[in-house]
Amino acid sequence: MRIFLTCYNDKGYESSMSTEASSPHPMPQSGKDVPRFAGLATFMRLPIIEDLSKLDIALIGLPMDGGTSTKPGARHGPRAVRDASTNLRLMHHVSHIEPFKLCRIADYGDCPVNPVDLMQTIDKVTAFYKEVHAAGVCPLSVGGDHLMTLPIFRGIAHERPVGMVHFDAHSDTADTFYGGSKYAHGTPFRRAVEEGLLDPKRTVQIGIRSTLYSDNDLAFARDHGMRVIFMEEVREKGTQYVIDEARRVVGDQPTYITFDVDSLDPAYAPGTGTPEVGGLNTFEAQQMVRGLQGLNLVGGDVVEVSPPFDPSGITSLVGANMMFEIMCVLADSIASRR
Amino acid sequence: MRIFLTCYNDKGYESSMSTEASSPHPMPQSGKDVPRFAGLATFMRLPIIEDLSKLDIALIGLPMDGGTSTKPGARHGPRAVRDASTNLRLMHHVSHIEPFKLCRIADYGDCPVNPVDLMQTIDKVTAFYKEVHAAGVCPLSVGGDHLMTLPIFRGIAHERPVGMVHFDAHSDTADTFYGGSKYAHGTPFRRAVEEGLLDPKRTVQIGIRSTLYSDNDLAFARDHGMRVIFMEEVREKGTQYVIDEARRVVGDQPTYITFDVDSLDPAYAPGTGTPEVGGLNTFEAQQMVRGLQGLNLVGGDVVEVSPPFDPSGITSLVGANMMFEIMCVLADSIASRR
Amino acid sequence: MRIFLTCYNDKGYESSMSTEASSPHPMPQSGKDVPRFAGLATFMRLPIIEDLSKLDIALIGLPMDGGTSTKPGARHGPRAVRDASTNLRLMHHVSHIEPFKLCRIADYGDCPVNPVDLMQTIDKVTAFYKEVHAAGVCPLSVGGDHLMTLPIFRGIAHERPVGMVHFDAHSDTADTFYGGSKYAHGTPFRRAVEEGLLDPKRTVQIGIRSTLYSDNDLAFARDHGMRVIFMEEVREKGTQYVIDEARRVVGDQPTYITFDVDSLDPAYAPGTGTPEVGGLNTFEAQQMVRGLQGLNLVGGDVVEVSPPFDPSGITSLVGANMMFEIMCVLADSIASRR
Amino acid sequence: MRIFLTCYNDKGYESSMSTEASSPHPMPQSGKDVPRFAGLATFMRLPIIEDLSKLDIALIGLPMDGGTSTKPGARHGPRAVRDASTNLRLMHHVSHIEPFKLCRIADYGDCPVNPVDLMQTIDKVTAFYKEVHAAGVCPLSVGGDHLMTLPIFRGIAHERPVGMVHFDAHSDTADTFYGGSKYAHGTPFRRAVEEGLLDPKRTVQIGIRSTLYSDNDLAFARDHGMRVIFMEEVREKGTQYVIDEARRVVGDQPTYITFDVDSLDPAYAPGTGTPEVGGLNTFEAQQMVRGLQGLNLVGGDVVEVSPPFDPSGITSLVGANMMFEIMCVLADSIASRR
Amino acid sequence: MRIFLTCYNDKGYESSMSTEASSPHPMPQSGKDVPRFAGLATFMRLPIIEDLSKLDIALIGLPMDGGTSTKPGARHGPRAVRDASTNLRLMHHVSHIEPFKLCRIADYGDCPVNPVDLMQTIDKVTAFYKEVHAAGVCPLSVGGDHLMTLPIFRGIAHERPVGMVHFDAHSDTADTFYGGSKYAHGTPFRRAVEEGLLDPKRTVQIGIRSTLYSDNDLAFARDHGMRVIFMEEVREKGTQYVIDEARRVVGDQPTYITFDVDSLDPAYAPGTGTPEVGGLNTFEAQQMVRGLQGLNLVGGDVVEVSPPFDPSGITSLVGANMMFEIMCVLADSIASRR
Amino acid sequence: MRIFLTCYNDKGYESSMSTEASSPHPMPQSGKDVPRFAGLATFMRLPIIEDLSKLDIALIGLPMDGGTSTKPGARHGPRAVRDASTNLRLMHHVSHIEPFKLCRIADYGDCPVNPVDLMQTIDKVTAFYKEVHAAGVCPLSVGGDHLMTLPIFRGIAHERPVGMVHFDAHSDTADTFYGGSKYAHGTPFRRAVEEGLLDPKRTVQIGIRSTLYSDNDLAFARDHGMRVIFMEEVREKGTQYVIDEARRVVGDQPTYITFDVDSLDPAYAPGTGTPEVGGLNTFEAQQMVRGLQGLNLVGGDVVEVSPPFDPSGITSLVGANMMFEIMCVLADSIASRR
Repeated sequence: MRIFLTCYNDKGYESSMSTEASSPHPMPQSGKDVPRFAGLATFMRLPIIEDLSKLDIALIGLPMDGGTSTKPGARHGPRAVRDASTNLRLMHHVSHIEPFKLCRIADYGDCPVNPVDLMQTIDKVTAFYKEVHAAGVCPLSVGGDHLMTLPIFRGIAHERPVGMVHFDAHSDTADTFYGGSKYAHGTPFRRAVEEGLLDPKRTVQIGIRSTLYSDNDLAFARDHGMRVIFMEEVREKGTQYVIDEARRVVGDQPTYITFDVDSLDPAYAPGTGTPEVGGLNTFEAQQMVRGLQGLNLVGGDVVEVSPPFDPSGITSLVGANMMFEIMCVLADSIASRR
Repeated sequence: MRIFLTCYNDKGYESSMSTEASSPHPMPQSGKDVPRFAGLATFMRLPIIEDLSKLDIALIGLPMDGGTSTKPGARHGPRAVRDASTNLRLMHHVSHIEPFKLCRIADYGDCPVNPVDLMQTIDKVTAFYKEVHAAGVCPLSVGGDHLMTLPIFRGIAHERPVGMVHFDAHSDTADTFYGGSKYAHGTPFRRAVEEGLLDPKRTVQIGIRSTLYSDNDLAFARDHGMRVIFMEEVREKGTQYVIDEARRVVGDQPTYITFDVDSLDPAYAPGTGTPEVGGLNTFEAQQMVRGLQGLNLVGGDVVEVSPPFDPSGITSLVGANMMFEIMCVLADSIASRR
Repeated sequence: MRIFLTCYNDKGYESSMSTEASSPHPMPQSGKDVPRFAGLATFMRLPIIEDLSKLDIALIGLPMDGGTSTKPGARHGPRAVRDASTNLRLMHHVSHIEPFKLCRIADYGDCPVNPVDLMQTIDKVTAFYKEVHAAGVCPLSVGGDHLMTLPIFRGIAHERPVGMVHFDAHSDTADTFYGGSKYAHGTPFRRAVEEGLLDPKRTVQIGIRSTLYSDNDLAFARDHGMRVIFMEEVREKGTQYVIDEARRVVGDQPTYITFDVDSLDPAYAPGTGTPEVGGLNTFEAQQMVRGLQGLNLVGGDVVEVSPPFDPSGITSLVGANMMFEIMCVLADSIASRR
Repeated sequence: MRIFLTCYNDKGYESSMSTEASSPHPMPQSGKDVPRFAGLATFMRLPIIEDLSKLDIALIGLPMDGGTSTKPGARHGPRAVRDASTNLRLMHHVSHIEPFKLCRIADYGDCPVNPVDLMQTIDKVTAFYKEVHAAGVCPLSVGGDHLMTLPIFRGIAHERPVGMVHFDAHSDTADTFYGGSKYAHGTPFRRAVEEGLLDPKRTVQIGIRSTLYSDNDLAFARDHGMRVIFMEEVREKGTQYVIDEARRVVGDQPTYITFDVDSLDPAYAPGTGTPEVGGLNTFEAQQMVRGLQGLNLVGGDVVEVSPPFDPSGITSLVGANMMFEIMCVLADSIASRR
Repeated sequence: MRIFLTCYNDKGYESSMSTEASSPHPMPQSGKDVPRFAGLATFMRLPIIEDLSKLDIALIGLPMDGGTSTKPGARHGPRAVRDASTNLRLMHHVSHIEPFKLCRIADYGDCPVNPVDLMQTIDKVTAFYKEVHAAGVCPLSVGGDHLMTLPIFRGIAHERPVGMVHFDAHSDTADTFYGGSKYAHGTPFRRAVEEGLLDPKRTVQIGIRSTLYSDNDLAFARDHGMRVIFMEEVREKGTQYVIDEARRVVGDQPTYITFDVDSLDPAYAPGTGTPEVGGLNTFEAQQMVRGLQGLNLVGGDVVEVSPPFDPSGITSLVGANMMFEIMCVLADSIASRR
Repeated sequence: MRIFLTCYNDKGYESSMSTEASSPHPMPQSGKDVPRFAGLATFMRLPIIEDLSKLDIALIGLPMDGGTSTKPGARHGPRAVRDASTNLRLMHHVSHIEPFKLCRIADYGDCPVNPVDLMQTIDKVTAFYKEVHAAGVCPLSVGGDHLMTLPIFRGIAHERPVGMVHFDAHSDTADTFYGGSKYAHGTPFRRAVEEGLLDPKRTVQIGIRSTLYSDNDLAFARDHGMRVIFMEEVREKGTQYVIDEARRVVGDQPTYITFDVDSLDPAYAPGTGTPEVGGLNTFEAQQMVRGLQGLNLVGGDVVEVSPPFDPSGITSLVGANMMFEIMCVLADSIASRR
């Protein structure tokens, strides 16, 4: 009778869905039964499940912003995105994907972090995602700053490099910051390539547009064969072209989707650490993620939602929606691999 | 000599306009004479007029949000839209329609409501609009939540069903909420069809895009012949196509325009009760309302402006502007029916 | 290893506390182990427990604002107070009360509500609290608007009227609003007296100060023997006097503490439905609640926290802290009754 | 039946009050009949009355901030204070003064201003207040910046200097700004003394505390015999002492009350042009204005409410309440002079 | 060793750039060495340089909003844009222009103003820009309201009229405001044409869309041969058409770029004095300014950034970026004239 | 003629002050000459001076928040406090201290930090303050989080421990956070005692009030002889008692003042990392700092101003004012030691 929405039990199942799945799946609490503002906020109003053996996709918060160069606050991202995600429902209105029927998905809680020790946090995150990966579960995470994608890769890509569809205003392939610091939210993908976690030839970066220090800024990406699609190319050629290009680049091998909300224009996502004007609108971003259906997807994340800079809450909302978009294509990919 | 702007008197008339009308019309106070921030805020800086016999269009506030499922606050919408509407002028810059010359338009005040009694409010609103309608006056309202369009219809469409051009992220044709409640801001148009107030075959819904509970969500709309234009179709086919389609659907019979500000993307209208990402931009919305010129229009509304979630005030501003757009085509329609 | 904080299990116990209690108690997750911004936000970072037999005090959210006369938004109060309450610790710094050692306390989730049906919600709330009360558990709730205290009383005071220490800017003993509506957030305590749930002679109201319609506004309170302490009397006589007076009025019979955050000055609690200037500061409020230690307490609530009007979050924070203050004296009272 | 609240007509009278007054008085719309958020916002929900012969006190907006040295925005003060003032009622809860029964009070609209021409505005304001004064009506105004009190004085004090009770963080008796500008919001009271409009020996300044350029800053005030009560003296001696001192200084001759909201601490009034920390709390301010009951009052104002710097709206609210406090003692004074 | 970033000295030069220039240029402090939030905020993190002989382009703040008709606050624009501009880097990501290598550019401080004396300010600004112009330096300014472009023109265009590419929602060619005031932010370009400072036949206005008082509003622009490109024409014909048209109109004579942030939709630039819905998005604005490369440019400005109405800071950010866009084409133009 | 305010030159001196000092002192730009919103924001509008030999007091920004346990953002504190400090003047209104005449004071810029490397930052800060100290200059800093006071102490207290007057809601003497991290904003004063930099017997902590984990929380402070004055003791005994007690504890040996803005109630300082309700009001804080005049002061800081959580800007303003209060007693102390 009470509304708490967070513990997994039999009453959480929706009986009518049992035709698709041999065992019942965790289902979100419906907003038509329980008001969206009621109860604890979990991702998508799903139960919390601790047991990886019961999951196909783990929704994970990663509340760390220790790699931020400019405006901090992404540590508050997971809680704010959980709150905003209570406005979502069960089926994608265009693809008609029903992720919760295709896969067993739940809120797996937050990954441990230490806000005053960045290097220790990187190790904690690595270990955490290794465990998720070892259980055969695909993680879909909400950051946190973009540096956190590096330890995620250490956890899930150590066996073989992954490809990546990367939405961002920045390439995040710088070498160092502040006279030699190698771990910051502008460096994760150079590190990932150096460590053999990310295949640069199967990497596509979409929405890049920040001003540059020099031509060299993108040299690493270019020299290693990443496909960099500037914002201007997105608008000139259109989203379908970008989708085609992304699919061509990553091919049919394991691929990860990382969505930095600063790929969006600040009008759509003001609450982020390093906003850059002239970006994507949300509709374009949604179109492009939807276009990734059918890829061989192994995980994803939405990063750089910074609630202290988001007075109207629209950034958390767009973060929750992009998480849903990724979840749909990820669940579809997992189901089709069975 | 004082600035109060709200009482109707002879000095309020603009003599040069008397060629179009047999009797002078109420005119907005000019922002070039009196600063926009001065005086009481009435809709469009028009006088308040109590006498329906002196009006063709009544601008009405409907400060009730008792049907809201998620974020309340639309009760504060009318006052905020009045404030923002003081920035408007006399002539449409594209169509060159001068609504205040075509019709006698004034601020008719707010409709009575009871914030702690939803069913009583529905009755009060019904009675209020019946009186407006009986006097031959077309209402143009500012909500308030979208449930309020139902009692408006009870007031003005009881004689024959109306057609509707409906801008929204949601179809608002659900049956019940919360275990059986039939009156909520997600149900008005099912009720209106059931009551014979709205002709579903002359109904077009534009901008629909929220995630769904199931395929069934839109079954009522579809089964009753409503034309549902998803956001994706708007972008794919363009606004001119949508205009053509809307005109085809509603034909030349009496038609109502209802504009839910959540049809706009949250970047353009963050202050609303159930924002959905990936929506219209304001320019598109303006284009489409302008394209309705020439229809047989009998009223309209702008709903779901929620000032508490609108820290920069842009939602109230866009609400006031959409009200102006509707007013232009409505005044033109009334004038052409004479 | 993961941070989720919401499910109750053996690891949640703190072994060192077992001397006080025959069985271990649920304990909050420590902010020195897990960062305060990490994990789901439960009240005080306690586990969620569904089983009333394992509780002495149930922390309950009551997300309904259907009785609000002015600014809505208190429906969002429970979630915001949970978030702010993650900043609290284990021991009161003045009284040295350790509530979690004295009693078994947990987050019991939210009470069911129907945001579009006020009367139905009143019934749901009544039934919910009856069940809590029948299990011998004391509720400590977070609203929600102040009307919600009426169904709480119906749930826990139907056997015998309770006394009440009531912090508020308003007496909330009006008869009707809007031409006859008997259920609004300005009427609960007249209804409660009429229904025999509240003993007016054992009622003290502290901080009253709103402007009046007439002398009659407080006639009901006065005529029924409530002790009304205006804000001016608080400042003139001091908080110790008020404490003494409150203790004298309620005596040693069962007593409830209700804390409306509008008892505080808007500087301290801007985010509320009907703010009134010239109110208490938080220190005074804390002093007075602390002074109620030793009373025979049966429950309490903190109401009228409205996050949409609280841009800096200080109202949610003060709501969480007042909840902690009440929890300390309530736990102490329960423990001393054993 | 409609809610518009702004036009004066017979239905606006409250018949039950006719025993006190030989002719009926304008009365505020009750918040128990019509929700506070409904209808146009006039001062105190009073009707607008254009005819000075029907008024004893005219409530006037003065939307000009051209004298502001730091943060502008007070031009938006009148509209915001009107909105906040809809939360007030009819009777003072401590003095039990019922101002609307004692005097005929209405919203008299806004005084004309020219935001791009300060000197012209000063002349317009002067002429406007001369007319009010000539009709025997006492003005109670809401600014606008503090310079506006100078043309008010030119309008109402040209026949004989007035005394003044002045709440402020600053003495506002500077000579010039920016290399010779004599008209700015830091200079009005030097000008007023120079012009013989203000009797410095009957002037008391309360709450002064800003940092100084030098000892000379207050030389004009001191040398002309103004009684300057620093914030520190208020706290050391208490509000009753300040009241006594103020009454002693102004005596029984005509006196004006001017309340700059920056006399309050920024915690209580963040939305103002030149906030200074360490100020009054609202309770103290209320106490001191109440203590002026019985003086020979001829008008008053509340100035420097700047809504753009007031995200939670508490400054507008405190402005409306201080207006109510002044209105009570002003109405009482006028009634007692009859 | 310290971070202050504001004083010009030899260590500020970047030696590797000396091939392009005979003498070293001032260079921004790099965000990869010094965090963007550290140190004083100068335009683009450039040094401050007092000596005009060392500059080609002077970046100037113009903190005056005395011509504002609606919402003030643009006086705070220069400081906020400086802060936001610390997020910029050295090279344009599309054109690859490196403005700081092409020209000697520095923060030249703020122009003197008098906030309480508009006419005096106009004279001060005129004199200031005359000095800049006499030294052969091109100014790139940040307002302040749009009226300020008039005294800039008096300073730099008195010898011969300039052409202008003007981005705005309004034509700013009104004659007077408020009964005869000739100097307000809606009048500068009529004044400039009247004074022979601006060649209307070489003027193009882009993004015009506000509602009108009458057909006459744009008569001055039209009658004097200005090319007015409404927002609708921008969207219908595309940005490349607008670029071509602008280039055709201004030709190869001296041209000034003025960018009013209200040319952007309020979603992109909420913090401005007279926002108008349905405007440009930032990407379009960037495209169009980039398309002006190769013109004979003599200066530019970004105006009407009003921080008090910009709670998320995106307007300041877009202002800084548009300043960077103009700086790139301006530096390129100057370099190509050598 | 230009307004830039940041470079030190002869024109910056105020000739009339030369009687007090053998050489002229840097003086703030006057707000009566140059508007407060104009020009770059330096601390107190002082020049920037690089040469330590020309200074007695260096005003320093310390933009690092890497030790924050809860809400980050204090890295943005120095820039926001500089902006707010432009509202200050030259003389204290109570003590009549004129700090800029007593000492040579200037803005010395920001200390270098590395936002992604906490331990490296601690070393950088230590080295920076060592240099300041070696030059015989007293630092007055603005943080940044409270951990930063530790490296300041390493820089200025390595020769002998200092005494400390410490305003805070928390004792900041915890041992470790998050399983062993020794450097966080809750640990600096335990570290400082352990390292012999702080004399605990000459340490007084004022305003302590946060909830506790256990009695042990304050064991370190108590066991080492720190005088801990809880908020309750401040209110019970009064500020004069606290001043006397603080003076008694620190005696006449070198003493440092550290002001954490969370010592203030969140009503007065909402923008901080770990707000605690029930705190000091600003007036009390000012009184207590003023009461420290005559101590043997060697430096001070204001920490934990977090602008992202400060929507109305009052926290930055109070931070600037507390900096001014400390500056006055520090300058007086230095002057009296000559």
